[in-house]
Amino acid sequence: MQYILKIDCPDQKGLVHKISGILFSHGLNMTENEEFVDKENRHFFMRSEVEGELDKEKVRKEILKILPPEANAELFVKHKKEIVIFATKEYHCLGDLLVRHHFGELNANVKAVISNHETLREFVEKLDIPFHFIPAKEKERHQHENEVLKIVKKYQPEYLVLAKYMRILTPEFTSNFPNRIINIHHSFLPAFIGAKPYAQAYARGVKMIGATAHFVNEDLDEGPIINQDVVQTNHAMDAITMARAGRDVEKIVLSNALKMVFSDRVFVIKNKTVIL
Amino acid sequence: MQYILKIDCPDQKGLVHKISGILFSHGLNMTENEEFVDKENRHFFMRSEVEGELDKEKVRKEILKILPPEANAELFVKHKKEIVIFATKEYHCLGDLLVRHHFGELNANVKAVISNHETLREFVEKLDIPFHFIPAKEKERHQHENEVLKIVKKYQPEYLVLAKYMRILTPEFTSNFPNRIINIHHSFLPAFIGAKPYAQAYARGVKMIGATAHFVNEDLDEGPIINQDVVQTNHAMDAITMARAGRDVEKIVLSNALKMVFSDRVFVIKNKTVIL
Amino acid sequence: MQYILKIDCPDQKGLVHKISGILFSHGLNMTENEEFVDKENRHFFMRSEVEGELDKEKVRKEILKILPPEANAELFVKHKKEIVIFATKEYHCLGDLLVRHHFGELNANVKAVISNHETLREFVEKLDIPFHFIPAKEKERHQHENEVLKIVKKYQPEYLVLAKYMRILTPEFTSNFPNRIINIHHSFLPAFIGAKPYAQAYARGVKMIGATAHFVNEDLDEGPIINQDVVQTNHAMDAITMARAGRDVEKIVLSNALKMVFSDRVFVIKNKTVIL
Amino acid sequence: MQYILKIDCPDQKGLVHKISGILFSHGLNMTENEEFVDKENRHFFMRSEVEGELDKEKVRKEILKILPPEANAELFVKHKKEIVIFATKEYHCLGDLLVRHHFGELNANVKAVISNHETLREFVEKLDIPFHFIPAKEKERHQHENEVLKIVKKYQPEYLVLAKYMRILTPEFTSNFPNRIINIHHSFLPAFIGAKPYAQAYARGVKMIGATAHFVNEDLDEGPIINQDVVQTNHAMDAITMARAGRDVEKIVLSNALKMVFSDRVFVIKNKTVIL
Repeated sequence: MQYILKIDCPDQKGLVHKISGILFSHGLNMTENEEFVDKENRHFFMRSEVEGELDKEKVRKEILKILPPEANAELFVKHKKEIVIFATKEYHCLGDLLVRHHFGELNANVKAVISNHETLREFVEKLDIPFHFIPAKEKERHQHENEVLKIVKKYQPEYLVLAKYMRILTPEFTSNFPNRIINIHHSFLPAFIGAKPYAQAYARGVKMIGATAHFVNEDLDEGPIINQDVVQTNHAMDAITMARAGRDVEKIVLSNALKMVFSDRVFVIKNKTVIL
Repeated sequence: MQYILKIDCPDQKGLVHKISGILFSHGLNMTENEEFVDKENRHFFMRSEVEGELDKEKVRKEILKILPPEANAELFVKHKKEIVIFATKEYHCLGDLLVRHHFGELNANVKAVISNHETLREFVEKLDIPFHFIPAKEKERHQHENEVLKIVKKYQPEYLVLAKYMRILTPEFTSNFPNRIINIHHSFLPAFIGAKPYAQAYARGVKMIGATAHFVNEDLDEGPIINQDVVQTNHAMDAITMARAGRDVEKIVLSNALKMVFSDRVFVIKNKTVIL
Repeated sequence: MQYILKIDCPDQKGLVHKISGILFSHGLNMTENEEFVDKENRHFFMRSEVEGELDKEKVRKEILKILPPEANAELFVKHKKEIVIFATKEYHCLGDLLVRHHFGELNANVKAVISNHETLREFVEKLDIPFHFIPAKEKERHQHENEVLKIVKKYQPEYLVLAKYMRILTPEFTSNFPNRIINIHHSFLPAFIGAKPYAQAYARGVKMIGATAHFVNEDLDEGPIINQDVVQTNHAMDAITMARAGRDVEKIVLSNALKMVFSDRVFVIKNKTVIL
Repeated sequence: MQYILKIDCPDQKGLVHKISGILFSHGLNMTENEEFVDKENRHFFMRSEVEGELDKEKVRKEILKILPPEANAELFVKHKKEIVIFATKEYHCLGDLLVRHHFGELNANVKAVISNHETLREFVEKLDIPFHFIPAKEKERHQHENEVLKIVKKYQPEYLVLAKYMRILTPEFTSNFPNRIINIHHSFLPAFIGAKPYAQAYARGVKMIGATAHFVNEDLDEGPIINQDVVQTNHAMDAITMARAGRDVEKIVLSNALKMVFSDRVFVIKNKTVIL
């Protein structure tokens, strides 16, 4: 059986030695191991892949005993994640994810797609994924979110993926999924925060445009960044051409971010990610 | 003899035909030619390299006659540009430019380096470039700028290059050199405008940092962008490591921007560049 | 009506003037125009987008009259291309193309998918594209190709796209579609020509892997290159992980190459492409 | 005091635990630590930065005792490397390295520059580095190499850097410096092995060109690759323009490779590098 061990805690001398000692004493094999010390915050991070037979709770308790009291330690069986995807009308990120999913590459089970428009239903259902249209028009924001939340809860997903979901989620909603909601923003954050980043980019005359995958927290576009990339632009591109060029960056940035999150490589400290 | 012809004007039917007709009638050969129409502003841009013997003023007047009255038309002998470089304490952009210059690659003659610190004098003088230290301490901004301007004017440069010049220039100063001052800003503008962009980038936890070469106009960091590039970062990099990684991007972005400007390929329209 | 004009011929003085003169005399508007002179081969290339009402054959003949006798000139209505896609078992390029097609972004009509395996049938048919399984096992190469050709001809495609088609086409087959077959090769050509490029890349310990979209001519992997890109690798990646990382590059490189080909921007001269 | 510990050996269970235990027992602090297991070769790699007071030989012996007999273990004080640079006529890589060196950024002391031409003497001596001109003309290869070796040995460098040294070194020469000679090759290896890679790249019509920094072993251009990067090209670039564009890639690829080598992050296994 393969397990993932994720630890983070205030740094101390000898942590690696002590932790590896416990694993070693149980006859476990560390097939992969990364550590990192954030020197500014004097914080230690460790991610291991462990092979063997073990009693999760017992080993975890032994580990916690030798760690500082503020430590986080997770030990769980390596597994595909259960997810729900939110989308609006744009197909490129959703399409990329569903094709990967269809062929078993996503490292996740897409339980459902939720949208505030009907546009993508036909495509989603062709690929045998349940599609929920929850219109937002003429509804109060909280009412809409409650309807969404009700559907989401039915599926008990580990992560929500906002694949170009063009609505702002309230802190009430996001607080249900701390560091469990991944969004793709269509700019190189913190440039062009907010609406219509390609129109902003065109207006500013930038020579590159980008995309940012990040966890969603209380403040719009301010969550911990997981992945970013850019593509060249030039004077001959208007906002629409930029948007088209940006789509490919968006979908690859999002899918690479998900690859890291779904393989349990991403830690969050304050407003940043550590990726091991 | 080789000439550069740069034209921009409101777009009309048949411009290329009419302009090339004039060149053709003088027996001139267009060895290179690019046009571009900005559809939003309905503005036409053209850059040609022309070979042959010609009376510059005569040909230019003929061309202006067939263009709309608001047209700009420049016709001049292809030549190396005369420049003055401003720097403060950082060596990487200046060093890169001076090495290129030393071996004849810069397409410009560096007439002098001006700095508000003595730090770089030894290096600059080793490479036989005049170095002017104009201290800014305990001086009013305008007094300092006037001293700088006096030195600059002595050299009659076509362009000023701010190679990590860590002082803000006033509109009074910059208005002397419209679209003739090129700056390198150490961020992917418009992200991290202003001071200490690497500290800002570190604080935000971005996964890429960048650099931007732009013309300097009245508003700090708001001038027309010429060139941008980025480099990957990760959680293990602090602000100092980011700054170090950023240096190579800065120097290449600046030198590529200068290559385009000094080969007369850059037009400015409103707050953007068109690069032919 | 919008037309595309593509011209290439030995270079001469005044070509742009003469050609634009003809268009101008017909009251046509050039909404986009690019020229390029290959100085080594002294060859002229031009691509224009022309707006207006015109008699294609008449205008084309007038243009040919003023061009050197070896000239090629095409003048046709701007249109979506008719294509047939070949694939084998891998889904990533095909999936990317079919999603774009489904949402009208591909600038082409996918008439059918042909494969030497059944693997991709279910996916292709879900998206309502005809799928033809033409097994190659225990068949002579020519017999298989004849069967394929028979199906292809039924659809009269303008282009064939090899989206990870893992069979070598004979010159007899490819000669039916000169510069009309686009392949994606999973390496940065000319590195790792031939089979299993990722295994070769892993064995060599390269720090980047790439992909190449090219026209298919008589020699395997030797046709004119349209587009290339790379992605970083490291010591921790084996051939399988490299292949996985390479897939995203492959699909984006192919789709960008098709964007250029299907918008009539690609010329072939000898074994190279000129892209205007 | 800061030490570097580099270990590589056949993989075993519990290596990290045992090694960290020895360091821990001496009261040493691991301020940085990376491990990697090459699963194909079942080989373990570890690099640590260790802080404290220690008896190098004693600690090293203790570590070797718990490792398999084939293990390599190095433990030494963190330090600037002593190097000699070889060049021919091109200035861009050499210039970049000497500017970094001049301002203390190179993490190495450049003891001398050796060249088979006089071209670069003036520049090198301006920056106060000894320059040795050892002409190769009309000399047998071995005689020339012996003269070079004699000079090199005088400086006792830890590394030789070939900054565009346009001569092939014999195995007799290179065997003196196993994994201690770093070369920059002006192509994306293994594409365009051998002479004139830019001419080859132009002839093939590639859409990107690259550079490769690698250790030099017995076979030309076949040594373990340390770093690679590429830059876009297009049909408008001839071999000379490509070479010019390639220079910036070459110098940055070389300098980044040296950064990794000089900070003791690079291991060689068979013909590949592992970089921790």
